[in-house]
Amino acid sequence: MHAGRRFTPVEFMKWTIRDTYWMLFLATIPTLLYFLGLKFLTFPWQPTAIVGTAVAFIVGFKNNASYNRLWEARQIYGTIINDSRSFAYTLRDALGGKQSIVVKRMFYRHFGWLTALRFQLREPRVWENMSDKRNENFRSSHYEIPETLTRVDIELAKYLGQEELSYILSKKNRATQLTAIQSEELAALRKDGLINDFQWTQLQQGLMKFTDHQGKAERIKNFPYPRNFSSIATYLLFIFIILVPFALLREFDRLGDGTFLQGYSIWLNIPFSAAITWAFHTLDTVGESSVNPFEGSANDVPITQISRTIEIDMRDMLDEANLPPAIVPKNNIVL
Amino acid sequence: MHAGRRFTPVEFMKWTIRDTYWMLFLATIPTLLYFLGLKFLTFPWQPTAIVGTAVAFIVGFKNNASYNRLWEARQIYGTIINDSRSFAYTLRDALGGKQSIVVKRMFYRHFGWLTALRFQLREPRVWENMSDKRNENFRSSHYEIPETLTRVDIELAKYLGQEELSYILSKKNRATQLTAIQSEELAALRKDGLINDFQWTQLQQGLMKFTDHQGKAERIKNFPYPRNFSSIATYLLFIFIILVPFALLREFDRLGDGTFLQGYSIWLNIPFSAAITWAFHTLDTVGESSVNPFEGSANDVPITQISRTIEIDMRDMLDEANLPPAIVPKNNIVL
Amino acid sequence: MHAGRRFTPVEFMKWTIRDTYWMLFLATIPTLLYFLGLKFLTFPWQPTAIVGTAVAFIVGFKNNASYNRLWEARQIYGTIINDSRSFAYTLRDALGGKQSIVVKRMFYRHFGWLTALRFQLREPRVWENMSDKRNENFRSSHYEIPETLTRVDIELAKYLGQEELSYILSKKNRATQLTAIQSEELAALRKDGLINDFQWTQLQQGLMKFTDHQGKAERIKNFPYPRNFSSIATYLLFIFIILVPFALLREFDRLGDGTFLQGYSIWLNIPFSAAITWAFHTLDTVGESSVNPFEGSANDVPITQISRTIEIDMRDMLDEANLPPAIVPKNNIVL
Amino acid sequence: MHAGRRFTPVEFMKWTIRDTYWMLFLATIPTLLYFLGLKFLTFPWQPTAIVGTAVAFIVGFKNNASYNRLWEARQIYGTIINDSRSFAYTLRDALGGKQSIVVKRMFYRHFGWLTALRFQLREPRVWENMSDKRNENFRSSHYEIPETLTRVDIELAKYLGQEELSYILSKKNRATQLTAIQSEELAALRKDGLINDFQWTQLQQGLMKFTDHQGKAERIKNFPYPRNFSSIATYLLFIFIILVPFALLREFDRLGDGTFLQGYSIWLNIPFSAAITWAFHTLDTVGESSVNPFEGSANDVPITQISRTIEIDMRDMLDEANLPPAIVPKNNIVL
Amino acid sequence: MHAGRRFTPVEFMKWTIRDTYWMLFLATIPTLLYFLGLKFLTFPWQPTAIVGTAVAFIVGFKNNASYNRLWEARQIYGTIINDSRSFAYTLRDALGGKQSIVVKRMFYRHFGWLTALRFQLREPRVWENMSDKRNENFRSSHYEIPETLTRVDIELAKYLGQEELSYILSKKNRATQLTAIQSEELAALRKDGLINDFQWTQLQQGLMKFTDHQGKAERIKNFPYPRNFSSIATYLLFIFIILVPFALLREFDRLGDGTFLQGYSIWLNIPFSAAITWAFHTLDTVGESSVNPFEGSANDVPITQISRTIEIDMRDMLDEANLPPAIVPKNNIVL
Repeated sequence: MHAGRRFTPVEFMKWTIRDTYWMLFLATIPTLLYFLGLKFLTFPWQPTAIVGTAVAFIVGFKNNASYNRLWEARQIYGTIINDSRSFAYTLRDALGGKQSIVVKRMFYRHFGWLTALRFQLREPRVWENMSDKRNENFRSSHYEIPETLTRVDIELAKYLGQEELSYILSKKNRATQLTAIQSEELAALRKDGLINDFQWTQLQQGLMKFTDHQGKAERIKNFPYPRNFSSIATYLLFIFIILVPFALLREFDRLGDGTFLQGYSIWLNIPFSAAITWAFHTLDTVGESSVNPFEGSANDVPITQISRTIEIDMRDMLDEANLPPAIVPKNNIVL
Repeated sequence: MHAGRRFTPVEFMKWTIRDTYWMLFLATIPTLLYFLGLKFLTFPWQPTAIVGTAVAFIVGFKNNASYNRLWEARQIYGTIINDSRSFAYTLRDALGGKQSIVVKRMFYRHFGWLTALRFQLREPRVWENMSDKRNENFRSSHYEIPETLTRVDIELAKYLGQEELSYILSKKNRATQLTAIQSEELAALRKDGLINDFQWTQLQQGLMKFTDHQGKAERIKNFPYPRNFSSIATYLLFIFIILVPFALLREFDRLGDGTFLQGYSIWLNIPFSAAITWAFHTLDTVGESSVNPFEGSANDVPITQISRTIEIDMRDMLDEANLPPAIVPKNNIVL
Repeated sequence: MHAGRRFTPVEFMKWTIRDTYWMLFLATIPTLLYFLGLKFLTFPWQPTAIVGTAVAFIVGFKNNASYNRLWEARQIYGTIINDSRSFAYTLRDALGGKQSIVVKRMFYRHFGWLTALRFQLREPRVWENMSDKRNENFRSSHYEIPETLTRVDIELAKYLGQEELSYILSKKNRATQLTAIQSEELAALRKDGLINDFQWTQLQQGLMKFTDHQGKAERIKNFPYPRNFSSIATYLLFIFIILVPFALLREFDRLGDGTFLQGYSIWLNIPFSAAITWAFHTLDTVGESSVNPFEGSANDVPITQISRTIEIDMRDMLDEANLPPAIVPKNNIVL
Repeated sequence: MHAGRRFTPVEFMKWTIRDTYWMLFLATIPTLLYFLGLKFLTFPWQPTAIVGTAVAFIVGFKNNASYNRLWEARQIYGTIINDSRSFAYTLRDALGGKQSIVVKRMFYRHFGWLTALRFQLREPRVWENMSDKRNENFRSSHYEIPETLTRVDIELAKYLGQEELSYILSKKNRATQLTAIQSEELAALRKDGLINDFQWTQLQQGLMKFTDHQGKAERIKNFPYPRNFSSIATYLLFIFIILVPFALLREFDRLGDGTFLQGYSIWLNIPFSAAITWAFHTLDTVGESSVNPFEGSANDVPITQISRTIEIDMRDMLDEANLPPAIVPKNNIVL
Repeated sequence: MHAGRRFTPVEFMKWTIRDTYWMLFLATIPTLLYFLGLKFLTFPWQPTAIVGTAVAFIVGFKNNASYNRLWEARQIYGTIINDSRSFAYTLRDALGGKQSIVVKRMFYRHFGWLTALRFQLREPRVWENMSDKRNENFRSSHYEIPETLTRVDIELAKYLGQEELSYILSKKNRATQLTAIQSEELAALRKDGLINDFQWTQLQQGLMKFTDHQGKAERIKNFPYPRNFSSIATYLLFIFIILVPFALLREFDRLGDGTFLQGYSIWLNIPFSAAITWAFHTLDTVGESSVNPFEGSANDVPITQISRTIEIDMRDMLDEANLPPAIVPKNNIVL
């Protein structure tokens, strides 16, 4: 997540520089041919405008879906914060307090769950955009993805005992099975009379909520913006980008009539057509850059930071000293 | 579901080839007549544009509904994943663990429910599009629908005892009655004191959730995008497609004025009118291709894959060996 | 609900035939006057287009609301299916099974509730459209409303004892009081120790859900699309329909210039203006035809069919023989 | 709420008559000046159209919010109906029936809560529109607001004992404290063993829901459509209304060219400009007239009628004779 | 929150005065150059219009998101009101009444939670707008932010004992830990038999809800409108503002043709271009001014007032005398 006021114009320019060159190139071709005498190349503006309307619709539609996916992802992690806090104080107070070794073990297993989950969510998918040149460049100059700097087993070892760690690493879906172990421990506590049925009910429902949140995050991760909608957006946009410089040829040619630019105003078609197609293309790219909110981009939901916040709050409930520091943005970016 | 970056341009072209021919044909008629001298055939652009606006609205509206139906379908199956996991560990831990034969029987009956449900959801409906030539061609070259390669009784036999299987096959709604059997077994476990009232409450609520999810999926399956909305979209689009080539005649005729194309530029009307009508028509077709998310199309919710994932996760909770493999995309398609 | 692929063009034409005549008539007046020499009658297109935008907005807004009302109505009845199934197996298994006379009585009272509800929902309201000529014609040639073919007391007698039937028929809101009797019986079962407090809680919550769903359906039934929004849509559309044929006069007059149609191309204004106003008007009519999803129209939520499905599923849970047949579409329409 | 088919054209005209005069006046000024020779006063249409687009957006946005506020308000009161019914039969059956004096007292206190709530919700707010001339005129000729015809203490006295009435009248938020008394009585019933813990839980949750619904209605009442959004809509609309008659001057001037109207067709600018600005302005006014759904307007949620319905249904559950009559629309309006 | 009818035109003008100067300045440059003879500077209107459409889309999109964030924030605080009331009477009646010292202590700790929360939410963030000159000016002349007039420890001291106050001030997230203390006290009450398990369940769920609401408010506080969407809106708007005065040059030049303004009508470009760009820019600014609903702006959710309302209602439930006064708007603004 970008935690500043805005991406600077320079950042924006750099981020879209390759597209800009393309837009300029595509605007140059018809301009040059027209200048060389192929006057018939002009294309009427009206049908271009109606294609533009269709493009605006489909790009707007995608941006809307993109925003909703991002916002839902943030809501899911927000709910993980809330339910972690509730689960934590309910568990603590059911088991008699801040010193309980069981409480601590279950708290730390919860941190393990958060860790396993964020590693799972940050694994790459075919449809994600992190290997795009533009994103690679921005990333290398601005931030790093925490989950690529270490390994999940190393991180999990901070929270789990050796035996449990080996068991979990052998599992298909580690986060799921960590919650299953929590359930097992709750069942044992209930059997041993350390918690009663009412407390078990509340706490077990807490676990079910975590399973729910995890599944929702996985849904967003594993179900991309539908590829048929995505593809038609790409191809319509492409058609529009091709047409615009043809459709503005005549206007720019006429512009100079009667002025000293006569015959040369056609060259204005290049920057201005490119500006317009750049605007639409960048609008689409901005949407694309939020559509996968767990890919490790600068616009991701900051799940590493949120997981840390939860750890701090829960350990603070036990009055632990030596709380880890909150994760803060670097170059305005925080993951 | 398409699990790649996008449909390739070639795939897209092939998929819409029949429509493309139609568009070209419909653009050729007025062009030819105009060329032959029926100059009065031109139609003004402005009313065409306003019909275009209405078409954009109705097609956008439909695509929005289509996306929402697809996304809700995916959410429903996402919730089935989540609630299956919660139900599984709660049941396992209530009944004392991974070796319990009752746990295993109820887990496998749950797989039976998933199986019956996906077979029910993949049955054809009158309003679905899988017998469209375009979809048949794509399917035959790219993927197969798992539910058509085998029979439901064969698949159910993997999970149910012989007697239960016969009973279930005699029922109207098999998935519903499988959940009812789960309820019966839970009631018996409660009566026998193997689970207490609190555990029964949680588990029974789990079953109710499955019934809920099943009903939601059946709602999307059985209630198509309303046919009145769908029909008006089709007919408005048709009117627009007819009008466009007439409305652009004069523009393309004028285009060549003063150039060597004079008198011939009218033929440009054919490719360009067709391109514009193709864009709108394909936008509609893309929406149509997601509106029934359980029809077995390339854009379906991958319910076979999801059912398998649930089976893997639940059997992994029992530390079973020989887990079945996850289902992976073939030619980028996974169902 | 229409359960086919689409309304056929002929059905659509017939359904809108009266409006079509009106549109043609309204387009003829200015055309005729213009032809007779009142050339000043032309109206500029630009302000017409902006009124058209406003009309598109308000009609689109209404269609959106209409679709949402229909879809919510379907969701409500979908939830009634789901909760009926859950309530049924929970009740059956709490009371010890498929032979219990209490279970059967409560099941049948539930069918009574479904029946009372659908009769209440299909009563006419002032703002509904079933007495519109266009809908009457379509209905008389395509389908019948089941609730008009019989009486509620006759239908209820199939499910309720004589005494209960008389009691219920004396009540203001029969469906509500049927649920209240279910509650009374559950309370008695609890008192008699036939179900325990946990089971009572689940089952009573089931009843509360039915009350909830009933109230939601009644809300849609009794609260029309707000009449102020509806009225402004009607009047704006009317203004637009009046303006369009005036605004296209000049364009169509010019169309024939230099061709053999010169002076006669003005008559093209009649079919084409009518086509455009027909498109907008029909868009509005299509929205209007779904806005009251319980009025008995061809686009209704099929509540009679759904009630039957529930009856089948619940009786199937008791292994009853002689299940009633599912209700199937006739002429593609099912209610 | 308006419970008829639509506002008649005459009602609509009367309701907007003052605005109509204004629109005509504002269109007359530039027309007159232009006629007197200030030909330079024309304003280009294109920028006006783009301002029109912005106005359409912001007015549409507001109408959408307005509709949602109205619909949410109706949903809240719908839920009050549902939860009142559920609470009623659960309470009745927990306490042993229709003759219980406690049941009756708590039912009547609930009616008291409904009464206190509707009086609170119908109190005026600064941002509401009931003192607008147009609304005052319509009200005085069509309907009355029930809450202004009597006093809350008189109405409450029908349902509460003398002592409780005095206590409640001394409170800041009467509806809230009435629910608090219900809670107190439930707690006493539980302590005295008249209801058990399970029943207490269900009934207490019922009370919590009423508190929830009350709070939601108060939220809509006390949080107007944000004044910054509302203000910008007003001012943009004002700019648009000023510009339109200037922007159409030239078109209407040209209209008469070559006809006997030459030089006089400019006067057509007055009715037609006014018609267009009237359409946009009325669209905004219609939205404004639903944005505060508890102000006592003709488009209000009919909370007095709904409260009566609840009273009827609950007293019907006790088999009371002498049920009060349902409230029916007068002049199509029901509050 | 602004609690009046609207921002006055003067307030609006003052609030946007700096932008107005900028718009005028940007419109003056091309006009002056054109006047000085650089006639080729004109830019065609059509591409400008399509950029305008894209700008309208992105600004509308942002305003929509902004409104939703504001409205969700208000809903969250509305739910805090509701759940506070329910929690309050349930707690009071569980613990035996209005005189209980435990009840009072827990009520006051809840007020402490409300206080800690509102101080946390009103802390500044980098992306907020309160240091914008326009907002500073408005604030200094109209209202003050209560949380900046005092300190959180002083305010908390009114509700918490000394020891608890010190403990809480040492914590990272004070509001969270205050709820955790409530949980601790409830657990003790349950252990001591002062409340039973059913009451504990209801009350503990109340606490969980508060944790939930707090987390939701923090989510809106800490997750800004995504900076990529925000940045593209800013830059597109900037491009549009630059283009408009160029695109209208020719229209305004022609305006005076044949009138005494000939050659001078070009100067009208300045006020009118500025009016149009002002409209779009202000639309964006209005959205921006609601996007952070906890920043202390005039359009904030009035969380200080709401917290006071809750305190009044809860103390009123204890029949306390000397209730604090409700917070009322000053200059129409209430925070």
